[in-house]
Formats: sequence, C-alpha cells, structure tokens
Amino acid sequence: MKTYWTGLAIVLSSLALPAQHNHPHAHAPARDIDFPDTEEYRVLACDFHIHTVFSDGSVWPDIRIQEAVRDSLDAVAMTEHLEYQPHADDLPHPDRNRSHVLAEQYARPYDLLVVQGAEITRSLPPGHSNALFIEDANRLLIADSLAVFEEAHRQGAFTFWNHPNWVAQRPDGVAELTPFHRYLIDNDLLHGIEVVNDLTISAEALQVALDNDLTIMGTSDIHGLVDYQYGIAEGGHRPVTLVLAAERSVEAIREALFAGRTVAWFENTLVGREENVRRVVAGSLSVAEAHYQGPSAVADVTLRNDSDADYTVENVSGYSLQSDLGLLHLPPHSETTLNVMTLERLGAFDLRFRVLNAVTGVEERLEITVPVAVTE
Amino acid sequence: MKTYWTGLAIVLSSLALPAQHNHPHAHAPARDIDFPDTEEYRVLACDFHIHTVFSDGSVWPDIRIQEAVRDSLDAVAMTEHLEYQPHADDLPHPDRNRSHVLAEQYARPYDLLVVQGAEITRSLPPGHSNALFIEDANRLLIADSLAVFEEAHRQGAFTFWNHPNWVAQRPDGVAELTPFHRYLIDNDLLHGIEVVNDLTISAEALQVALDNDLTIMGTSDIHGLVDYQYGIAEGGHRPVTLVLAAERSVEAIREALFAGRTVAWFENTLVGREENVRRVVAGSLSVAEAHYQGPSAVADVTLRNDSDADYTVENVSGYSLQSDLGLLHLPPHSETTLNVMTLERLGAFDLRFRVLNAVTGVEERLEITVPVAVTE
Amino acid sequence: MKTYWTGLAIVLSSLALPAQHNHPHAHAPARDIDFPDTEEYRVLACDFHIHTVFSDGSVWPDIRIQEAVRDSLDAVAMTEHLEYQPHADDLPHPDRNRSHVLAEQYARPYDLLVVQGAEITRSLPPGHSNALFIEDANRLLIADSLAVFEEAHRQGAFTFWNHPNWVAQRPDGVAELTPFHRYLIDNDLLHGIEVVNDLTISAEALQVALDNDLTIMGTSDIHGLVDYQYGIAEGGHRPVTLVLAAERSVEAIREALFAGRTVAWFENTLVGREENVRRVVAGSLSVAEAHYQGPSAVADVTLRNDSDADYTVENVSGYSLQSDLGLLHLPPHSETTLNVMTLERLGAFDLRFRVLNAVTGVEERLEITVPVAVTE
Amino acid sequence: MKTYWTGLAIVLSSLALPAQHNHPHAHAPARDIDFPDTEEYRVLACDFHIHTVFSDGSVWPDIRIQEAVRDSLDAVAMTEHLEYQPHADDLPHPDRNRSHVLAEQYARPYDLLVVQGAEITRSLPPGHSNALFIEDANRLLIADSLAVFEEAHRQGAFTFWNHPNWVAQRPDGVAELTPFHRYLIDNDLLHGIEVVNDLTISAEALQVALDNDLTIMGTSDIHGLVDYQYGIAEGGHRPVTLVLAAERSVEAIREALFAGRTVAWFENTLVGREENVRRVVAGSLSVAEAHYQGPSAVADVTLRNDSDADYTVENVSGYSLQSDLGLLHLPPHSETTLNVMTLERLGAFDLRFRVLNAVTGVEERLEITVPVAVTE
Repeated sequence: MKTYWTGLAIVLSSLALPAQHNHPHAHAPARDIDFPDTEEYRVLACDFHIHTVFSDGSVWPDIRIQEAVRDSLDAVAMTEHLEYQPHADDLPHPDRNRSHVLAEQYARPYDLLVVQGAEITRSLPPGHSNALFIEDANRLLIADSLAVFEEAHRQGAFTFWNHPNWVAQRPDGVAELTPFHRYLIDNDLLHGIEVVNDLTISAEALQVALDNDLTIMGTSDIHGLVDYQYGIAEGGHRPVTLVLAAERSVEAIREALFAGRTVAWFENTLVGREENVRRVVAGSLSVAEAHYQGPSAVADVTLRNDSDADYTVENVSGYSLQSDLGLLHLPPHSETTLNVMTLERLGAFDLRFRVLNAVTGVEERLEITVPVAVTE
Repeated sequence: MKTYWTGLAIVLSSLALPAQHNHPHAHAPARDIDFPDTEEYRVLACDFHIHTVFSDGSVWPDIRIQEAVRDSLDAVAMTEHLEYQPHADDLPHPDRNRSHVLAEQYARPYDLLVVQGAEITRSLPPGHSNALFIEDANRLLIADSLAVFEEAHRQGAFTFWNHPNWVAQRPDGVAELTPFHRYLIDNDLLHGIEVVNDLTISAEALQVALDNDLTIMGTSDIHGLVDYQYGIAEGGHRPVTLVLAAERSVEAIREALFAGRTVAWFENTLVGREENVRRVVAGSLSVAEAHYQGPSAVADVTLRNDSDADYTVENVSGYSLQSDLGLLHLPPHSETTLNVMTLERLGAFDLRFRVLNAVTGVEERLEITVPVAVTE
Repeated sequence: MKTYWTGLAIVLSSLALPAQHNHPHAHAPARDIDFPDTEEYRVLACDFHIHTVFSDGSVWPDIRIQEAVRDSLDAVAMTEHLEYQPHADDLPHPDRNRSHVLAEQYARPYDLLVVQGAEITRSLPPGHSNALFIEDANRLLIADSLAVFEEAHRQGAFTFWNHPNWVAQRPDGVAELTPFHRYLIDNDLLHGIEVVNDLTISAEALQVALDNDLTIMGTSDIHGLVDYQYGIAEGGHRPVTLVLAAERSVEAIREALFAGRTVAWFENTLVGREENVRRVVAGSLSVAEAHYQGPSAVADVTLRNDSDADYTVENVSGYSLQSDLGLLHLPPHSETTLNVMTLERLGAFDLRFRVLNAVTGVEERLEITVPVAVTE
Repeated sequence: MKTYWTGLAIVLSSLALPAQHNHPHAHAPARDIDFPDTEEYRVLACDFHIHTVFSDGSVWPDIRIQEAVRDSLDAVAMTEHLEYQPHADDLPHPDRNRSHVLAEQYARPYDLLVVQGAEITRSLPPGHSNALFIEDANRLLIADSLAVFEEAHRQGAFTFWNHPNWVAQRPDGVAELTPFHRYLIDNDLLHGIEVVNDLTISAEALQVALDNDLTIMGTSDIHGLVDYQYGIAEGGHRPVTLVLAAERSVEAIREALFAGRTVAWFENTLVGREENVRRVVAGSLSVAEAHYQGPSAVADVTLRNDSDADYTVENVSGYSLQSDLGLLHLPPHSETTLNVMTLERLGAFDLRFRVLNAVTGVEERLEITVPVAVTE
C-alpha cells in the first residue's frame, strides 16, 4: 500500500504517508553518529563497505540509504562483490554499477554523499579489497588479480584491503602482509587496510597500517540489517571511518583518504594515527568552567565532551583528584566535573589524561593536555 | 565477511558468527508479540501481507523471516503482487512462487510457519486481494479479474480484500463493497477483509466485515523494514491477525480463518467479532489476589494482565474504586491493584469492565465480567 | 561532611559541594509537574497537605522544599497535625508554626511559594481538615471542634475536609457530609474537600463537592518520601491541586481557592468543575498542522499536547479516523497526527473529543471541540 | 492519612496501605547493591556513616532504614555527631543512643543489621571519627579528645578517621596523619580510615591506609536523601564498604573490620588491599563458555560478571582479541564474549586482565588470571 498505484497503471507519487503514530512507551537511544569537527577539518562519518542484494546482501539499496540517513552518516559506498553473485539466478544483472546507481538515486532527497565502489573478491592473496571512487565497476571484472588493481588505479581508485584478519582466509586471524600486498603497496595500488571490520578489530592490522603508511579504515561490511547487527535499539552503532576532510565533498574525502587522515570508530574505541586521533579527541573536549571550592585548594573543573565517545581516561596530571581514583569517565555529549587538588590556588594549570579508548598504536594510547584557566 | 567464502569458491558454512558484543547503555523494549492462549484455542500471531524484492518490497525474504522471528510471530505469508513487478528489470524471475520458496527455506531453523500466498493486484473493483494457502502462484497470472478468484478458489485459497480504505483507490478512504465484491462473497470467492492495514484502521471496513460475515484481518503490508515502519525501538509493533486456532499448524490456521476466528491487533487496539475479542481478553486477565483492607469494606483486588495490550477500561461494576475514577489501566504483563468499595464485606463479587481498546463494533466495546473471590 | 564545621565551632558556609558526578547508565524520567497556563489564568501546581517530623512525618522541612523544587511546584503548605504529635517526646516544641517557619526559610533560594497551614485533627465528625493562609497555628489549639474552625475563619483561613473517604474513619470509604459539615459549610467555615488524597480518589467526594459548591482539592498528604510513595523513578508524580490563579502569588492562590478555580491532578486523571477542566485541557491542546493527503479527502491533522496529561480520548467528531478506532492517545509534551476522513475536502472543520481522563462529574467526561483550519 | 488514627486516640495498626499503582511509563534502574560472595567469605554491603535529624541530618531514622532496604544493604550504623547538635533547640534530647534505638526498631521487619555507632566530632587533629560497636554513646560525651577514644576502646569500639581529605579541615584536601593520629594508631585506638566519603575518594588516604595497616572504609556520610545525593534514578549508588565476613552477623562484621577485610565501592571503582579486591573480583567473574570458531584458531570465550561493577579491563594475556583493542568491558550482571586469537587451537589457556577500576594502590590496579578450558 506504500506506492500510489491503481490497477495495473503505475502512478509515481510523492503522496505523504500517514505520519507515524506516537509510541510513548519507550525512548529509543539516539543513533546518529556525532563527532564535532576539529580545528582544521570536517569530521565526516563514512561507511565504505556495504552490500545489497546486488551481491550477497539482503536488502535493496534504498534500505542502505535509510540506514545511513538514520545513522547521520556523511558518506557511503555500495561495495558489491564483483565476482561473488549468489543471487545471480534471480538477479542476473550484467551491470556491476547498478547498485551504486540506485543508491545515488535513493540518496538524492538527503544530504548524503554516495561514493562509487566495488569489492574485488579473491582468495588470499590478495584476499578481498575495496576500490573507491571508481568510474565503472564492470571494467574491474578481470580474471588476473594484479590487473584488476591496475585497472582500479587507472580509474583513480583508492583501494584498501578488507578484513585482513578474516578467519576464513587466515584461520589464526592474524593480519599479515603477503609479498603480493607488498608489491601492491610499493606500486601505489593499495592505500588502506581495514583495522576494523564489522564486529572485529585487529591489533595486527593496526601494526601493518602504521608500518606501511596505509590508511586506517573501519567499516561495517553490512550484509543484513544495521539495526540488528549492531544492536541499535540497545545503543550500539555500526563501525565507521571518521574522515578528516577539508570540506564535505566526495573530492575532499578522496583527498583525505589518500592523505591517511582517518580514525576508525568501533564500539567505544577510536583507533588511528596519533595526529588524527588527537585532532578528534581535542575537537570534542573543552573546559566549561573552573573555580576553586570556597577558600580551598581544590578546583572544580567541568569538562565538556561533545562527541559520541565515552572517554575513559587515566589522570596523569600529577594532581590527585578528589572525585576519581581509578578511572575517569567523560560520558558522551555531557559535562563532567573533576575536583582537582592543586595543593595551592593557581590561576591556571594543565590537566593531562591518558585516553584509554583512543588507540594510537598496539600498546599506545593518546595522551592529551587540557589547559585550565581558573575563574576567580 | 558474513559468508564463509574463500576466493571464488563458495563454502556453505554454519560457522557461528562472533557473538554480538554487549550494549550496556540502553535497554531495548521487548518486541515479541505475546497474547496467551484462550481456554479453547491457541492464539497465533500472524502477518499475512508481506512484500519483498520479488515484488515492490525492499528486502530479500531472509530479512522477513528474521523480522518475524524477532517479533515472535507464529505464521507469515509472502504476498507478492502478481501483476506489479517494479524490479522486473533487475529480477526478471518468471516464477511467482520464488519468494515463498525462499522464505520457507530461511524459516526452516525456526519455529515459524510459512503460508503460501500472493496478492491479486487490480484496479477497483476489485482492488487488491490476498489469496492464502494457494498451490501455485503462477497459475493466478490471469487477466480476467473474476477468473483469478475462481482459480484461487480451485486451489483452496482463503481470499481477503486488502486495504479497502486505501485513498489511492478510494480518495475518501471509505471502505464500501462493490457489486463485484458482493458477487465474490455470494460465490464463496472472498472470505475476509482487512480492517487493519499498515498504519490504518477502518471503521467502515469493520462494518462491512460484520454485515457480510467476512473474516476480520489485520496485516502490516510491509514493504520497507518492520523496525522503521512501526517504531520497534520505541515500543511499537506491527499489526497482526491473532488467529484462534485449534492447534499451531497451517491447517488449523486455515480452518480458523474460514471460521472467522480472528482478532486484529493494531497499536493498542484489539478489533474483532465480540466472541473472539472476549476470548482473547478473558484469556489474558486473571485475579491474582483479593482481600479487604484491615477491618474496612474496601477490597484490594490485584488483576493480572498476561497480554501485550494495555487495557484501558471503564469500571461499570456498580462499585466505586478508591484507586481510579476516570479510566483504569491494566498495563501489559503486569499486575494492578484496584481498591474496590463494596460497601459491606463480601465473600465474592463481580467486577465489570468496559474495555475501551477492545472493539467489537464501530461503536461497540467489549464488556467483561471478572468474578472475584475474597481471601479471608 | 556537608556542613562546613571545624571542631566545636560552627562556621556558616556557602561552600559549594563537589558537583554531582555523571550517571550515564540511565535516563531518569522528567519529574516536573507541567501544565501550560490557560488563556485567562496561570496554572499553579500546589500541594497543600504535607507533614514533617513536626507532626507524624519522617523528614525535616528542608527535604519537603527539595522535593517541591524537584517537582517544580509553585506552592506548598506544611500542614502538621495540631493535636497529633507522636514525636513529642523527642521534639517537645511548643510552637505549632515552627515547621512553616523553617520551610519558608529553606524555600528562600527558590522560586517556591510557602503558604502557612495546619491540620485540624479530629474524630469524625468533623474528621481532619486543613486550614490554609492562617496567621498563627498555636491559636488553633482549641479543644472545641467548632471553635477551632471559627478561629481559623477569624484568621482568614481557607479550610477543606481531608480524605473524607478514609477507611479509618469511614470503613466503607464513602465520603458523606455530616450535619456538622453542613453547619460548617452553611456558616462559611468549610470551603473545600479533598477529592484526591495520596493514592486515593473519591467519586463520592466529587459528588459532595459539586453538590455543595466546595473547592475540589488534590493533595499528597505525604509523610514519608515523595519519591518512594509516588514512584518518581518510574515516571509517577504526586497528586496536586492545579490552581487557576490571576497571578503567581499567595494572594492570588487564596482568591482562586475561595473562587473554586481548581483541578486535581491524580495519576493520569484531571478532575474538577467542567469550566476549570476545560480551561486546563484547552490550554494544553493546539493544532500544529493540517493538510490533506495528496488529492484525497483524508486530512492529516497534527495535534500538539503541551501538558503532562496523556489524554485518552474518544473521537466524537462525526468523522471516522484512518488512524484510530477505539481510543486515541495524545501523549504528554508531544505531537500526534490523526488521519481524518472528511469525505470531501474542506477548508475548515471541527474535531470533537470526549476526554476520558478529564473528569467533570462522577459519570461525566469533558467534551471539547478543536477547530481545524486546513493548509492548502 | 498514613497512620490509623481517629480523633485524639492513637490506634496502632498494621493496616495495609493501598497498593502502589502501576507506573508503566518508565523502568527504574535496579538500585540494590549486589556483589556475590567470595570463595571464603560473605560479601556484605555496609554503610557505617549516616546522619539523621538527631544530629545534622534531614530525616527521621525510619527513612534511613527504608533507603538501606531499597539499596539491599546488609548493615548500617547511625553515626550522629556527639558534639554537634544544630537541631538541639527543636530536639533537645539528652540521649545520644536515641537514633540507634529508633533505627533498630524500624529495621526489625527487615533483614538488615544495625550496628551502634557515633561520630566523635573534633577540630583537626583528630578531626571527625566514627566509633562502631559501642555500648553507650552518652559515655562518649567527653571533652578531652584522647579520653573519648580511650572510652570508645573500653566499649570495644572499632574506630575510623572520617573524611581525612575534607577541605574544611585540610584546605588542600590532602589526607595526612598527624602525631595525634599516630599515637591513636600505636595505642590501638584508631583502626580504619575513610578512603571514600560521600562524593570523594582520596589517593592520599589510600596510601595512609596501606602504610599504617588501617582498614579501608567507604561511606556515604549521608545527611539529605540517598536518592538525590547519588542519582539513584539515573543508576547511581551510594558508596559502601564491602565487608568480607565469615557470616552475616554483627559479630562477624566486627571481626572482619578489625582484620582489615574490606573493599570500598565508589561509583564504578573498587578500592582495597590487593587480597581483598582480588577476592571480590574473582568471586564475580566466571567463564560461561569457550569454543573455537569453526576450524579457526580464534576462541569465543564468554565471561560472566555477576557483580554490580562494570569491569573495565586491559587484556594483558599475550593473546590479541578480535573483539577488542583498547579497553574491554565486562558489564554488570551480564555475559560478554571475547574472540581470543590463540594462534593455534589449545585445550586450555589463561586470560589475564588488568582491571582498571579495581584499585589496590595509588598507582596499582588488580591483575587477575582467568583460566579457560575449551569445549570441543
């Protein structure tokens, strides 16, 4: 009854559906993915690994657009398996661009960028890889594994290795470069690597990225429904790549990906190169207020966190806190007041935190300084 | 990464996915549709109007099975438009049974019945109708509108008129039988009518059902995602038909539909023939405890409601309540204590309620008696 | 550790307490009692029946102020039992004004009015009564029951009968005037009656109020904690009297009480004289938007409810709704869209509702007309 | 209306109050404090620093019992200031045991232990101290500060220093022993120290406790309402001392306190001596299930956490996890599945965690080993 259609004639219609009725019995958690921009860059939430019925996914592309809009994503790419078409008997479509074309069309009413992509789907090596910003997916239907990367390159693609930790291809789950990958990297044919894929995060992939200057990616690789896979109703979110781009455009995203300016956002963990993680964390923290308690030398410092991350930090300021000893939480989109023991009354001082869920290396966590100016 | 697949060879696999991580920040409302059985019948929650990509829906049939399992439905039918195939360019499938065949296959691991159905999709008259329990949807591809109902009948189908209140076919939204419908009814070719479709409920369709002895149906007619359309995360639910069946089987459902033993469940409203609504409401209410307050003549009566309905009732017992004056609520799956003023201490008495969200006619609400035995 | 105190010397101090830390794991329901003003009057939420340790309550007056501030009340009165002093061995205070004096002092930092009151505590007749706006509670310590009402009158008091349905005084819970009450009323010594007290509501008290032109009161009569008694954490609220006053002042409240301009707010029920209930309900409902669905004759009308009441209404407009059949809900502080079948497209029409939780008589519910102007 | 009382005669009554009505609109977070017993000890949740109107608190002792019952505490002590009586004009009671006597009486219907205590309230040194298990508080009304500790000792008291970090006595908030304290400790007159008081936790007090073999205490020092002070409706809890006792009795608690078997539970932090923290954490963690994913070398290990603590841990097992990189959460009363990369398939292995919210020294966190046996 959703389409405005009578008898056997189709009437295209923008007829508004009856408004959804109220459901007053519960309050669904906010699902939009929300990190503030940094001083220098827009922070764009992107999911560049998505499947539909046009390869082995279970939904039509319109659902992918609805999910992305509900998640407040900035950009998505449909990345159908080029070579793996389990629905081919039902959808014998010859055009590997079809999913992207439909997604772009469904995205038109929304403020959502759609990047053209495809998944090169091979045995290991090279395993699976996504090519983004391509011109024509059909031209990537090439038997030779190296030739397909070369063709992607000719189309200007940014290419990244998918789920290098996949147990179906590496039973021990260890992400490790093969000589084939090394060749691709050396010849500018591979630019990134998924440190985060779906429900997994890979320490070894992070090390590979850092060692080889690969862009750190986090993707959902969604096949079913985002809502089910990530427990949206319970407050979960899909993994995304936060892209630090000069502006909100496909071109700026492309520039940022090639420049490696990304942070993967997985459950409550941010993972990326130190400078990028620092930008994102610094961009979301600020001091809302600071004053001493009465005539004492204990300062109440109110920190504001404008991001989705529930920052879990260790206080390494050199000052004890009256409010916290073990861990300190700076919950998302809220203010937290610390009681800082500065021993004497100071006009200004620095807080210093080790942010345990801001990962900058396998054993590295971001350390960040927050300068505090006290109000008399 | 969801299928266990290496290179270009498909490996069918039941490999367990990594367990979903905890999402401790929110508590999703229970979404299972849950009405207890009545004294005589199983109460089966059924959705017999569902679309997939095989007509104008947006998901593959596996998603429909996942949604139904999450909703704890007892039975579903994929009811693709026979004549309306907007995805035909991409899915040029010649077999109108395909969606049902796939649904049945996906449902196998679950305790979910799948009824074979199809939607006969015509201008008004006769508009759209669903045929259930058919043998072969392909044989329903008949140009003549009457002939298709006759073929459905030959296949043993239970047939019902869909969304008779649809503004695309009746701009005033008034459900009204046409001579064609009357002919179908008189010749045993039409057996039910949707009083509830998607986000709508029709007083006029209810009147038509009661006047013509048509089975009262409530369906989702889902095209997109159940979770989005019905606000599942906010505590909503899809509309369903509660079928009062002798047992939990396709055959028993068929018998009950032909016998008219249904209640539609829409938002917080139950609608059906009085005897059926009475069975469902009576089956879900019981007295958990009753005793007088101290030496007074005010009895505390604890009523238990084991159903999903938030019963909103008027007290027409003839006794005042100390606890309620305007409306009385018996929230779902919980106990509520009423303070009943019986004027003198009685060993037993009757409570009588007008259940305002249990609709048995356009202006009729169920009245139900709850006998109370007082504990000394 | 809350008072700034060293050794045996007390140091009065406004030392700020450490800010309360974040509790990110749950979201408490809003507890403020919130009804918008009407066209003519301020709507003031008042609780005029409250106990502290100065009679048989369990808290110091400061807690009563904190509870009231959290509930966003406009006015309260401490109404200690004059004659019933179960804590007298520990608190042998001779001054019956003490509780009020303390409450007023604790309320000073807040925007909360404190009315001076006391509870005249007698056997039936006359039972318990509250006197508000008194000058000196000590002067009400008079043995003769009539003389105490006369003294209250001399002090300018507004006096109302408390819990006339109390089973400890009327084992059948039936509120019924005695000759003594009739004398009080006839001589302007009794002006109101509690239709709502704590967890009870009394149909008979409502009838007495309407028959005798008594002001309808709703009070908590709180002795323990408001949070526990009314399930604040589960979304409950204390009963209050909504006073329709010309301005927000003690004097205006007094004028309104004598003029009978009140509505009691109990659980989800509003109860009062028709004109007052109408003012409150009308003041909280508005049409946010109205337009027809496409070319149809079904109008989407969005109603806005700015009050705490979850209005439960029957549609008695003469138009069917596509969206609702049994009951219609207009949840608190939200918008609800109805799909109104006007049969032809109209520029304006009236919706008419029977508001089932707006009680204007024992069997009477408010009927209200909402005029709708359609946007082209 | 809560007491069953007519006229001027008091009728003691156990008349049941009308049952609290349902509040279906919200679900309050569980507030009971719940840590499972350890292998050797009962884990008893105790609050041994509580005020009522009998010193400078704001509630009658019955409310303190209700709060404790709702928090599922095992034991409480009313610890009124002996020397500080700001309500003395209203409550000129001469008996410093009165609060305890009343609390004990109110606790009788419940399974709650009440320990007799008092707060010795002096300038620094020695500041404030609580004496527990005393016989007669009145005999502690001694001017000389040393003499009062000696009297407490004669009564068999366990004595601890309250809020050594209090800015009103130490403007820099630094807990530091004075010679007076050292004398008390050396002469067995001081046995414990509050590391946690109300909204504060003190690193320096922890160091003092560890250096001087003082029992680590955590208390609320509640003066107002527990629900308001600790954000109960938002999921907060009051600070308590978890006492590891041989059985659930006052005597066993006393033995455990003198033996130093305590862990303070503050917000989401456990703090105590390593052996005690280890017992509590080990007692709440177990392996529910462990098996390898298909033919891979990645093991799904499901950990069960039966405590209120949201354990925040670093994986120091030597194995990478597919599921977590930065921090790992083991939410309260739930199961969490880790995907452990053991490189080869093992029959058994050890997981090792650094539990960041289990504090055993100023810079020390508990490290715990969880042995895993894999199911084939």
